[in-house]
Amino acid sequence: MSKTIKPENSKAYLAELAHDTPSASRRNFLKKGVKYSTGLVAAAATGNAISGNLPPNVPSWSKTLGTGVVSTPYGVPSKFEANVIRRTVPWLTADKISSISMSPIQELKGIITPNGLFFERYHSGTPTINPEDHRLMIHGLVDNPLILTMDDLTRFPSESVINFLECPANGGMEWRGPQMEALQFTHGMVSCCEWTGVRLSTLLEEVGVKEEGKWILAEGADGAGMSRSIPLEKALDDTLVVYAQNGEKLRPEQGYPVRLFNPGWEGNTSVKWLRRLEIGDKPWHHREETSKYTDLMPDGRARRFSYEQEANSVITSPCPENPWSAKGFYQIEGLAWSGRGKIKHVDISIDGGVSWRPAKLKGLVLSKSFTRFSLPFKWNGAPGLLQSRAIDETGYVQPTLAQLREIRGVNSIYHKNSIHTWQLSSDGGVKNVQLK
Amino acid sequence: MSKTIKPENSKAYLAELAHDTPSASRRNFLKKGVKYSTGLVAAAATGNAISGNLPPNVPSWSKTLGTGVVSTPYGVPSKFEANVIRRTVPWLTADKISSISMSPIQELKGIITPNGLFFERYHSGTPTINPEDHRLMIHGLVDNPLILTMDDLTRFPSESVINFLECPANGGMEWRGPQMEALQFTHGMVSCCEWTGVRLSTLLEEVGVKEEGKWILAEGADGAGMSRSIPLEKALDDTLVVYAQNGEKLRPEQGYPVRLFNPGWEGNTSVKWLRRLEIGDKPWHHREETSKYTDLMPDGRARRFSYEQEANSVITSPCPENPWSAKGFYQIEGLAWSGRGKIKHVDISIDGGVSWRPAKLKGLVLSKSFTRFSLPFKWNGAPGLLQSRAIDETGYVQPTLAQLREIRGVNSIYHKNSIHTWQLSSDGGVKNVQLK
Repeated sequence: MSKTIKPENSKAYLAELAHDTPSASRRNFLKKGVKYSTGLVAAAATGNAISGNLPPNVPSWSKTLGTGVVSTPYGVPSKFEANVIRRTVPWLTADKISSISMSPIQELKGIITPNGLFFERYHSGTPTINPEDHRLMIHGLVDNPLILTMDDLTRFPSESVINFLECPANGGMEWRGPQMEALQFTHGMVSCCEWTGVRLSTLLEEVGVKEEGKWILAEGADGAGMSRSIPLEKALDDTLVVYAQNGEKLRPEQGYPVRLFNPGWEGNTSVKWLRRLEIGDKPWHHREETSKYTDLMPDGRARRFSYEQEANSVITSPCPENPWSAKGFYQIEGLAWSGRGKIKHVDISIDGGVSWRPAKLKGLVLSKSFTRFSLPFKWNGAPGLLQSRAIDETGYVQPTLAQLREIRGVNSIYHKNSIHTWQLSSDGGVKNVQLK
Repeated sequence: MSKTIKPENSKAYLAELAHDTPSASRRNFLKKGVKYSTGLVAAAATGNAISGNLPPNVPSWSKTLGTGVVSTPYGVPSKFEANVIRRTVPWLTADKISSISMSPIQELKGIITPNGLFFERYHSGTPTINPEDHRLMIHGLVDNPLILTMDDLTRFPSESVINFLECPANGGMEWRGPQMEALQFTHGMVSCCEWTGVRLSTLLEEVGVKEEGKWILAEGADGAGMSRSIPLEKALDDTLVVYAQNGEKLRPEQGYPVRLFNPGWEGNTSVKWLRRLEIGDKPWHHREETSKYTDLMPDGRARRFSYEQEANSVITSPCPENPWSAKGFYQIEGLAWSGRGKIKHVDISIDGGVSWRPAKLKGLVLSKSFTRFSLPFKWNGAPGLLQSRAIDETGYVQPTLAQLREIRGVNSIYHKNSIHTWQLSSDGGVKNVQLK
């Protein structure tokens, strides 16, 4: 049975953990944990030589002129961050061009994913499109069909929102058992950024949807002609026609020059390189919403149009790529998100779900966005089973793997949002495991 | 005399302008403005050939395989956006390495500046620092001096905030008269992103500041040894020791691996490549807070420690780089920010400040952050004098140039936050002008 420790029941515990109430033990840890805690004063007093660039020496880079502003008109990360890149899983898809690259979410901080690290997924590679030659057609059951240039589109009123975008296959390799030994591969098909575009409802108002118009086909200009059926209700709610991300124009792999964006919905409904919006009276049942992007149920039937990305969360530190190095004070930290709205609460377990402790939600808590959570934790070197459990504002609770399998079986690829388990060893190492 | 049109006094006007109340005139414009509005149906019906990649033809890039995921492990912008870069003003500084590059804010959307386009300013170039060799010393009037490695630092509780950062010299070339013929150069020394780091107050708690400790010297590890005196009150309020921006590690030119960050304060107090924090009992009066970064007043005296970046705003569309192409419907759009807190209100004038119309604040309105504003506007081809005026939550009103000069004169370089004027010509072109 799981047991939730509520704040009001555990004042002593929280007082120890709360980082605004420094305890003697934490102070002690930090002093011990610091490699050079007495170095400065001692070395200065005794004249002990500490070699090279370490204090109290002045480092070599303080004695020379650095790189000038003209060198990077468009800036790039430090060469010491060369390991922070998107990565592919060679065997995951039949084709290496029309594939997936995953975001290094184990390295990310805050809630914004920089554009260069945003995960990629496409079905026929990234087309190269000159925005001057691109057109967006809106036609079908409308009064006034339109063909818009990018200049036309950007003259409409725009909006900006911070929202996550997730491939519904995120975690899909883990249905039958733990398979990927890295957070980047278990959860790296999700990213979050600030999107800017025009409300689809504004464009629909412009063309005038006929009474019988109930569905919208969105079609991409890539070689796959990627297409999905979107119900009119979503379009009138919060769908955007997006041309910028994190302040600049969309990246090519994110649909440059224009994509659909359905906040909170499975990624492939947010059709990239958007070329055509056709209004019809029923869904189209195209390839990527029948043979793919449907959920194969235990009885062999397929559940179609499972659009929403339900509440999910994962601990990003520690994780296989971020082990702990020694006993002492750490932040257990992670990301939570829900396609249904705001994250309301996140619990953390260190004993595989037997007991739960409330995490702190940090920074901005926005609807359909990444939300950071953390829990201060003094590690005594004991092994553990670390889990996080997200609850969103609708009251939806992230399910256990057993609960999810009871309904969904193990044949599916998509929408695996169950509670994830990291096994922490006494040496600080972290493994991907699954509990019964 | 200036006249403010309040919402309650101008219902008819607002009804016409509000973009949630489409008017007949706007509909008409959009149809006329669209180059191919009847193309799709007409061409399909008559079999007229529309050449090349334009509808109803299927474009060439829909018929081929695109670029694969393996090509850009760290993504880059489209080649068609090669013009969206940081730019320098060759004559602005004596040295081309220790200089300034300005952000293309005329191209940005929303409130996030992507890291590659964040403005740069430094006094001895960007040092190349291996984070493993970097140390942050905290010493002086403290109980327990510390020398922290980057690993030590990242184990402390972290926070993430979206805040702007502005060089106090932003707009400084415009004190005597209009000089720069581009928004990128009149206002491009400001950017906004999500910062992640440790509260300086957390670190000060760790070292224990002695009773007499009132000021903090922050010193950088660059060749300039850039240093500023920070009062303890700011440190205990919201100063961060930052190691990440927009989700990833700091860019080299932003202080990699660690910088100070003083939300809302002039940029150079947020010392980059932070090497040393010394606690003392009074300010140090180092070079960059005496001979520079002080405001030379009309009587020849210098005002020191003018830390806050007061409320400012500018219209980003139209602007010299974004002229209007034809009569019709547009969004007058811009950015506002205040180092004192949230933007409460922005007014727009099209007649050089004679009358004002309230703009809509769009998206997130956060403290000490970029805030987007816009006003729908049907342009009849008349020339105009476009201005924006920001008011922050403290009630501070962005001053006119005359008001600012009355107090500050024309000898200063820093903190020029007066109302900016764009002259709109009947051909849609925009010029930088100054009114009496």
